[in-house]
Amino acid sequence: MNKINVGVIGLGLRGSMLLKGVILPIDYVEVLGVCDLYEDRTKKGFDAVVEAKGNEPLCTSDYRDLLDMPEIDAIVITSAWESHIQIAVEAMNAGKYVGMEVGGAYSIEDCWKLVHAYEKTKMPCMLMENCCYGRNELMVLNMVKQGLFGDIVHCAGGYHHDLREEIAFGNENRHYRLRNYLNRNCENYPTHELGPIAKVLNINKGNRMLTLNSVASKAAGLEEYIKQKKPNDAELLNAKFLQGDIVTTIIKCAHGETITLTLDTTLPRSYSRGFCVRGTKGAYEEQTHSIFLDDVHNKYDFDWRQQWGNADKYIEQYEHPIWKEYIKEGIRGGHDGMDWLVFNAFFESVANKTQTPIDVYDAAAWMSISVLSEQSIAGGGATVYIPDFTNGKWLQPQKKTDSKYSL
Amino acid sequence: MNKINVGVIGLGLRGSMLLKGVILPIDYVEVLGVCDLYEDRTKKGFDAVVEAKGNEPLCTSDYRDLLDMPEIDAIVITSAWESHIQIAVEAMNAGKYVGMEVGGAYSIEDCWKLVHAYEKTKMPCMLMENCCYGRNELMVLNMVKQGLFGDIVHCAGGYHHDLREEIAFGNENRHYRLRNYLNRNCENYPTHELGPIAKVLNINKGNRMLTLNSVASKAAGLEEYIKQKKPNDAELLNAKFLQGDIVTTIIKCAHGETITLTLDTTLPRSYSRGFCVRGTKGAYEEQTHSIFLDDVHNKYDFDWRQQWGNADKYIEQYEHPIWKEYIKEGIRGGHDGMDWLVFNAFFESVANKTQTPIDVYDAAAWMSISVLSEQSIAGGGATVYIPDFTNGKWLQPQKKTDSKYSL
Repeated sequence: MNKINVGVIGLGLRGSMLLKGVILPIDYVEVLGVCDLYEDRTKKGFDAVVEAKGNEPLCTSDYRDLLDMPEIDAIVITSAWESHIQIAVEAMNAGKYVGMEVGGAYSIEDCWKLVHAYEKTKMPCMLMENCCYGRNELMVLNMVKQGLFGDIVHCAGGYHHDLREEIAFGNENRHYRLRNYLNRNCENYPTHELGPIAKVLNINKGNRMLTLNSVASKAAGLEEYIKQKKPNDAELLNAKFLQGDIVTTIIKCAHGETITLTLDTTLPRSYSRGFCVRGTKGAYEEQTHSIFLDDVHNKYDFDWRQQWGNADKYIEQYEHPIWKEYIKEGIRGGHDGMDWLVFNAFFESVANKTQTPIDVYDAAAWMSISVLSEQSIAGGGATVYIPDFTNGKWLQPQKKTDSKYSL
Repeated sequence: MNKINVGVIGLGLRGSMLLKGVILPIDYVEVLGVCDLYEDRTKKGFDAVVEAKGNEPLCTSDYRDLLDMPEIDAIVITSAWESHIQIAVEAMNAGKYVGMEVGGAYSIEDCWKLVHAYEKTKMPCMLMENCCYGRNELMVLNMVKQGLFGDIVHCAGGYHHDLREEIAFGNENRHYRLRNYLNRNCENYPTHELGPIAKVLNINKGNRMLTLNSVASKAAGLEEYIKQKKPNDAELLNAKFLQGDIVTTIIKCAHGETITLTLDTTLPRSYSRGFCVRGTKGAYEEQTHSIFLDDVHNKYDFDWRQQWGNADKYIEQYEHPIWKEYIKEGIRGGHDGMDWLVFNAFFESVANKTQTPIDVYDAAAWMSISVLSEQSIAGGGATVYIPDFTNGKWLQPQKKTDSKYSL
């Protein structure tokens, strides 16, 4: 693989974890610059680069310093949600590949800016949706592509993750989630579930998302949590959170499929992405990690408990080629190995100067859901239209690529 | 218990099952009349009554003949969905208690007719929602009332039941579901999940449902099924079904809670009512039959599989009093014993001349969801307003009753 040079912008929890656990261990990647608004974080990033690779990266609090370095090929954006698109657009304009961590958008205009920057510069912009490379998600995608579930009719997913501690007290209250939960009410983090679903439903490659309705429950979880856990935190104890605890979003697609998304981060529960794929011949459901194939499992109709976890038995036959090879090479990095795959997919594209497997249109469409859900919730569940960020390019089905990380 | 006299209208699959398995075995209930549009069904009902009780009931194809019998105290309606409300209204006007099988309404006007007939006659009308008496549903209701889940924020449920065979080929194509699936597109069967949820959220008793959004997927399941199973059935093979395979409905309540309902009856899968209750301190989820209590189960956050089925351990401590006594007496009748409970609850009210535990306002509100979802789907997921069928009576919290079947 050709050697590539990278700059990393944003070194909070996520950025520093990725830098140390994923980016620096990749042999053909050099990190020439690190950037954060907080000096303590940049210092730690600098130390990590020196320790892993020996070179001394540029340290800065102004990301433009990294964009100005002609030797940098690609920018990794792991900063606060609100800054992603602005930095991505400037990075593309500076001729850099962009690997942008996930999050939702704040305006439709911003999503268009991403698209326009790409169309002007042809610099690929990849949304680093690691869950697109989840082992279960890829097994199911593989089964879908082989036709085992028939015609796909409905998908569901959620970000079911109890983040109360992180939102309220994480990072000494300088976590970007806190200000979002205090001031907004929307599906603020749609892509962990929507990314894999979009690949199942060929969104932007023969299909597209047409309309959306979002409804939010009241916001009760964080206030109760703060009352219980830090009754002496005067500032937070009086805080009123606007972000509803459960946000349910229904998306309708051009070919008639529906997608249900659930944001679920401020009530007690266990982690799940609630991935669910339903077709005319079969189904996968993450909650019970089970597969239902028509004419195979019907006898368990009223006793599905016997089949809980049965997807374990299918993994041998239907493991996605990406994961087959990955297991041979050895699973590495965080989040069950997904981070390693998504970053290798990005850096491979950078090294080979090819399109990324998740592209700028995916980024715009998936991130727009946050904005549109905010509008829908504000309108009492109103139907809102999802823009066609491809301007008709979605009518072309997906082209095969040579990338080993192709989705 | 005082002896009561009953007439049964509708003797298809459901009616004859209830007659033989539940109604006739209750010692203080006499069946004085049976009615169906098909003579073969009435004949079987007649035989069942004679065999069980010795008396010869009136047989008729005109339900008004039963309403005209002054000795009949209560009417059980187990006919096709479309006829429920018309018969119920006439029965109340004839001075009869009404036990009406579940189904959705076809117009809001019809729901109001139910309410007006009750308010004029004061004859109680009970929607026979057996799932309100489900063992898990009642355990969870008991836990909610004891405050174990904290403030309830969100509930979900679904009618996840593969009915393809019954819809397409059941009852020699004279099943009421077939004509509904061919011609309508709505949440056609909301009450199995909504009934228990309404009791959890005190709907009509201190809370109410305010708005609704429904979105339907395409209809692909039945057409594929018919193609596979009866390729020579010329009539059905060319049929175009309008009923979307998956209908997702989001309801917003006055106190800010959300309810998600899923109709899911025409794709391959296993049976579930998908009952889910989420609060600020805990949760129940039917799919994995598990309970999450804050500060108890948090350590299993990323390994919930270890806790699948853990609700089994809670049943001893939190079994609802109704079920505690029921198990002592012996579980009887169909649908895991729920039918027995709901019919005993109804007949107890008839015998004691008291209000039924599920009342006419519950019936109107729950059944209205079908109509309103039809409107919302037709409007592309439009927000529709749910009428206050109580005209403000919902502002009163639930009164305690002496009934052993009180919910």
